[in-house]
Amino acid sequence: MEAVPGELVLAVDLGGTKISTALVSPQYRVVARDYQLTLAAEGPQPVVARLIAAIERILADHSISPTQLHGISIAAAGAIDRERGLITLSPNLPGWHDIALREIVSARFGVGTFLINDAKAAALGEHRLGAGQGVDNLIVVTVGTGIGGGIIINGSLYYGTSGSAGEIGHMTIDVNGPKCACGNTGCWEMLASGAAMTREAVRRIGLGENSLLNEMVKGRLTDITGEKIEAAARRGDPLAQQIVARTAQYLGVGLVNLVNIFSPGMITVGGGLAKMGDLLLEPARRLMRERAFHQASSVVRIVPAQLGPEAGVLGAAVFARESDR
Amino acid sequence: MEAVPGELVLAVDLGGTKISTALVSPQYRVVARDYQLTLAAEGPQPVVARLIAAIERILADHSISPTQLHGISIAAAGAIDRERGLITLSPNLPGWHDIALREIVSARFGVGTFLINDAKAAALGEHRLGAGQGVDNLIVVTVGTGIGGGIIINGSLYYGTSGSAGEIGHMTIDVNGPKCACGNTGCWEMLASGAAMTREAVRRIGLGENSLLNEMVKGRLTDITGEKIEAAARRGDPLAQQIVARTAQYLGVGLVNLVNIFSPGMITVGGGLAKMGDLLLEPARRLMRERAFHQASSVVRIVPAQLGPEAGVLGAAVFARESDR
Repeated sequence: MEAVPGELVLAVDLGGTKISTALVSPQYRVVARDYQLTLAAEGPQPVVARLIAAIERILADHSISPTQLHGISIAAAGAIDRERGLITLSPNLPGWHDIALREIVSARFGVGTFLINDAKAAALGEHRLGAGQGVDNLIVVTVGTGIGGGIIINGSLYYGTSGSAGEIGHMTIDVNGPKCACGNTGCWEMLASGAAMTREAVRRIGLGENSLLNEMVKGRLTDITGEKIEAAARRGDPLAQQIVARTAQYLGVGLVNLVNIFSPGMITVGGGLAKMGDLLLEPARRLMRERAFHQASSVVRIVPAQLGPEAGVLGAAVFARESDR
Repeated sequence: MEAVPGELVLAVDLGGTKISTALVSPQYRVVARDYQLTLAAEGPQPVVARLIAAIERILADHSISPTQLHGISIAAAGAIDRERGLITLSPNLPGWHDIALREIVSARFGVGTFLINDAKAAALGEHRLGAGQGVDNLIVVTVGTGIGGGIIINGSLYYGTSGSAGEIGHMTIDVNGPKCACGNTGCWEMLASGAAMTREAVRRIGLGENSLLNEMVKGRLTDITGEKIEAAARRGDPLAQQIVARTAQYLGVGLVNLVNIFSPGMITVGGGLAKMGDLLLEPARRLMRERAFHQASSVVRIVPAQLGPEAGVLGAAVFARESDR
């Protein structure tokens, strides 16, 4: 255990699939971690109860009382009202509307509590502790089931006027493309995310095309994942290779937009899909260099994110330490 | 003439069509103005000579010597190297590559000279003097032949790492759309600009569709302009109305992207096409409200720019006064 437990931040990453908890030292070392399933479909009350239980458990397991903490900091997959500390809405947490999570947790544990959007937390983490250290203008792209984003301008996290800036996954790149659940059309995440990849594989195999993937999942197409598509592509399966190439192209198209709009010094690409590495990133980079303005494309580095699955808790810890209490 | 001529900025707006000059008071009143044609096709040397002659003329006409000026400030339609004061490249000024315009003018007149991209100048002007006063996060969109943009973040003009940020006209909104001269595909300005409108009208009439426009230009399709399409639409011509509606939709799609990415407090829409007013703006606003994230769309105002054709010279004057000499 840490020498000065009073300085620990208890960081929580509240996602649609799991609730991760961590104790984070002042040097941003994760000294303890735990997680449990969110079971988001049950709605806000049971999820809030599980989140509180998860906090209690990691405290009990390490014999720490809440008053010894620097604070509790929650990175959540949803839109945040910063002033009031609410989760106003979440695509990944069904039924959450204006839930006063910051107050609930703060009242329960009697310590300063912080609430930040998870993509913004990841951006803060990547800038302070990860690949983006020292980069003035940084875009942190997280490509998983969807595409999340965080924007650092002149070294500071950019919130925009409503607090919701950075929804880069929901820029239209195909005006005639599929409808997105967000209400927009042809969003980047409808075309370049993990969900887009598996949807395309299921669609094409469903239409009767041959693929190694069909054998790999023994005909259960719902078992197709990004990892399986990657594995099939690496084994030479043409359909899987085409899908990876298509996803990389779409990824590149969105990067062109970000480079032309922001001329950032760096764009980091993280999230589940980024594990594919250069299989995905190199063709996307190439397309970006071909199409974006030379002045901007010649200075931007497109690199893998460094923090991995701990981006959320680390970013939440940074947020707590940098915020005024 | 101004009481304190020593405080005047001589502002120049160097565009692809004309070179505007103005004497601008410390209160940002345009106390004198002049212009001449750029004749850009002749290449950089004759254009630079005309620009210098234009500066000499407005000085002579008002009996001002260069040393009485606060400075000379040039807003130019092109990519700028801020450090070295070069126009590195310009889509509207053929043959311009790394022209050291700041040094040339400064050496010729012996006064502090400033050089800024024209869309950035317009953004600065609109923020300090126009519709965007007091707005922390502002996007200034200029829709003319193309689409230019300037971004104000937390009250400051945002340049990005290379200085070229704000090329919002060159974000892909239709990945399967037409190739743009910039090297990208399906750019916003290929679909929502004045050039896009006239191109579409010429195409459809060329294919044999009926339109009032055909009579208005007596069959000379190259004479079709945005103004004529607007006039035909207001007179009830179905083809012109469809083209205006289509342009407004595409305009709205780009606004959705800007709102989701930046969550600005305001977006101003200026330039030649914006003269159409709500015929264009209202359907674009409606689409934006339908499709963008509610948290962001509920706080943003989409309004006409206020500075009109003087945005360039006024913005250049602001830039000169706010820059360190």
